[in-house]
Amino acid sequence: MTKTAAIIGGGVIGGGWLARFVLNGWNVNVFDPDPEAGRKIDAVLANARRALPMLYDVALPTEGTITFCDTLAGAVRDADWVQESVPERLDIKHKVYAELAEHVRDDAIIGSSTSGFKPSELQQGMAIASQIMVTHPFNPVYLLPLIELVPSPANDASTIKRAQDILTSLGLYPLHVRKEIDAHIADRFLEAVWREGLWLIKDGIATTEEIDNAIRYGFGLRWAQMGLFETYRIAGGEAGMKHFIAQFGPCLSWPWTKLMDVPELTDELVDMIGTQSDAQAGDLSIRDLERLRDDNLVAMMRALKGQNAAAGALLNTHEATLAPKSEANVKPLQTIARTIPVDWTDYNGHMNESRYGQIYSDAADAVMKLVGADADYIADGLSYFTVDINIKFLAENHAGDAVTVNSRVLIGEGKKLKLAHDMLAADGTVVSTAEQFLIHVSLETRASCAPRADVLAKVEALAAAHAGDA
Amino acid sequence: MTKTAAIIGGGVIGGGWLARFVLNGWNVNVFDPDPEAGRKIDAVLANARRALPMLYDVALPTEGTITFCDTLAGAVRDADWVQESVPERLDIKHKVYAELAEHVRDDAIIGSSTSGFKPSELQQGMAIASQIMVTHPFNPVYLLPLIELVPSPANDASTIKRAQDILTSLGLYPLHVRKEIDAHIADRFLEAVWREGLWLIKDGIATTEEIDNAIRYGFGLRWAQMGLFETYRIAGGEAGMKHFIAQFGPCLSWPWTKLMDVPELTDELVDMIGTQSDAQAGDLSIRDLERLRDDNLVAMMRALKGQNAAAGALLNTHEATLAPKSEANVKPLQTIARTIPVDWTDYNGHMNESRYGQIYSDAADAVMKLVGADADYIADGLSYFTVDINIKFLAENHAGDAVTVNSRVLIGEGKKLKLAHDMLAADGTVVSTAEQFLIHVSLETRASCAPRADVLAKVEALAAAHAGDA
Repeated sequence: MTKTAAIIGGGVIGGGWLARFVLNGWNVNVFDPDPEAGRKIDAVLANARRALPMLYDVALPTEGTITFCDTLAGAVRDADWVQESVPERLDIKHKVYAELAEHVRDDAIIGSSTSGFKPSELQQGMAIASQIMVTHPFNPVYLLPLIELVPSPANDASTIKRAQDILTSLGLYPLHVRKEIDAHIADRFLEAVWREGLWLIKDGIATTEEIDNAIRYGFGLRWAQMGLFETYRIAGGEAGMKHFIAQFGPCLSWPWTKLMDVPELTDELVDMIGTQSDAQAGDLSIRDLERLRDDNLVAMMRALKGQNAAAGALLNTHEATLAPKSEANVKPLQTIARTIPVDWTDYNGHMNESRYGQIYSDAADAVMKLVGADADYIADGLSYFTVDINIKFLAENHAGDAVTVNSRVLIGEGKKLKLAHDMLAADGTVVSTAEQFLIHVSLETRASCAPRADVLAKVEALAAAHAGDA
Repeated sequence: MTKTAAIIGGGVIGGGWLARFVLNGWNVNVFDPDPEAGRKIDAVLANARRALPMLYDVALPTEGTITFCDTLAGAVRDADWVQESVPERLDIKHKVYAELAEHVRDDAIIGSSTSGFKPSELQQGMAIASQIMVTHPFNPVYLLPLIELVPSPANDASTIKRAQDILTSLGLYPLHVRKEIDAHIADRFLEAVWREGLWLIKDGIATTEEIDNAIRYGFGLRWAQMGLFETYRIAGGEAGMKHFIAQFGPCLSWPWTKLMDVPELTDELVDMIGTQSDAQAGDLSIRDLERLRDDNLVAMMRALKGQNAAAGALLNTHEATLAPKSEANVKPLQTIARTIPVDWTDYNGHMNESRYGQIYSDAADAVMKLVGADADYIADGLSYFTVDINIKFLAENHAGDAVTVNSRVLIGEGKKLKLAHDMLAADGTVVSTAEQFLIHVSLETRASCAPRADVLAKVEALAAAHAGDA
């Protein structure tokens, strides 16, 4: 049965919650007296509709319906979940809860998006205290999975469990914050970093851009996959986490940040961290963790490379300095020389069949560059599109294997370009072959058209040079 | 001409530098009196040889040679670059530099991996002061691009430029820290976060694992691609960065972190941040930035999904609850229903040809699951491998497009499984077709073998059901 969420307050955060619910098949009622609410929510929803389904390799459930309500009562009456994202003022939040108390179902869960307030502060004096919890999301709510779920003793275990299950069913990760504290957990780090960042800017040490680069080209990448302590566990190596942490003691009195209200690194605290880290790592050795870290970093950096963004843009720039210049008069024509990356393997432990297609697509690109159908040519609105490919898979390839591809032009006439590719392992074994048929197109009309004369001449020359080659 | 680097101190950091140099074609001399140095470097180098080449879609240069030297003098005499990664004690570093002064080339650059010392402290009293700079890397040095390049007034502009060029040629990003400060830039943030983390653990608010999850499922993902300020710029929305920052003023006096030595958020400081952020964003609007952020997050999270790690593991768990159960008796047999993600498109602006192969590979998986060749079956050492595929590309697909695939079993006899797939756009247009030939294999011998009887029976039943379908 379709469930219903009520969204109270529809800014960037409320809109993000709305998108999360609706795209997971919930019906949503919205209450927000702001006359601009509809426009603001539409903007968030448009982003979410574009981005969230892309995360999955299956279709999301059919979208729920969205109803804008004139009254709070109308919005919440049937709701299984009420998400409150009104401004960060306790008096405003209390006013909303007092009205909710008259209209919500007894079994409805009321989540607050508050960044800073403790659940006991939200619950104070409320008849529905046992239904109110902090469920603090992170922007963009429709993509990032973290929800800080902060209950108080007023919430019973079954309500907490129900909230966890619902959040999990939305693709979220409810992090149960066991002890309430101002700003919960994540925002305490954000606030510490923010304060240090203000000092660096104020003191003229770094600009906003320099700070962002210091984060995203270094520890930001580590944190996206392992966080802080697992990363340090690896840095500590075989000597172990306790040894590694203990040696940090003296630094706490050094002026390495301007934030000097530090705890004392007692033996007890070192021991607590070491024990927790051991439990976290389970039976994974440092070598195991290093490999997981490296695989994650490689996969993420390659993902950014595909977007030509952040560390991936740096890789593309560097790669341009490494790319060999193909030479037309060399036989065989080597179009690819590369290593199979870890993000190309599948559950069978070998390179997935689709990645053979990737390599042959790249090989065709190399031939195109060689005949002058390069980035400028494409920018001018002309290109070749593959219309048919036949791939034979002769032997397996694994992550880390070096492979090369030799390519020949079988047909190069008018709009037609037919290529034959041989993929070779490092020892010269042919591991796959392909025949690939391309048609020259106009990127404007997306229809076929003749290549530019100089490109065609080079295609014809290659076809002639390769004629009769096996 | 092949260049030479000298690595002084070969732990995890020195070893990482060594790998960066060698895998980019430099010769490397190592000096480290630790009898374990060779073993430690080999471990780092093995990781680096596996991971670094995977980042690139072209081959890296031919590896340089590695020479272990008995003396510092022998290691550095011919070096274009000397990288010092000895322990963090100024007296030890000064001793090394004093000896270097007698043996290095006049044009050699001496980089120090120090996390904390300022370059002026390193240079103090050294005849070769003008050659010494901080070049602070981040672990793993062979993967993360950030190097904090911190010169002092003792270094002239041409030396700094030469250092930048060399680091860039190694695929690194030299962040020029313009004003020296203890712990440079990135480690100041790490230290602030570390101090806050110690409080949270000491106060029993969160364990190391909870803290790591609070980071990697939320802001860690944001920081890996945009850092701190660009992220806040987006959060600020149309109202602009200055407005957004100014409203943070009051929080600085709130106990949102225990690190309370905060600067005052004066109008001047707000203005400085706003102006720097405007310059950083260039002509990109908030909408542009949102889209870049979302594309990066989708691509990175999908990369982690492929590794079944961090946020990607959460996605896989959620996806398992969404996956429709294929039904054998339904015609046509729908094997795929999904959205084309942003990491599947190429420079032509459409889905890359290799991703058709991905979809057909997934379609074959769906058929396999249907006949009982599922994850358990594969874990038992049996699977189907594709040996031949022919794909026809009939129309273009773009990121965000919803597609489905209908599949038929053309041949299902003994070891042989031949499938036909039709890929349909949302409006029912056939955008591509494929014929895919698979052979049943033993994952132990990697040779063909008969399927299990119950699997074969289901394959035969499907083949019979589909016989005669167009």
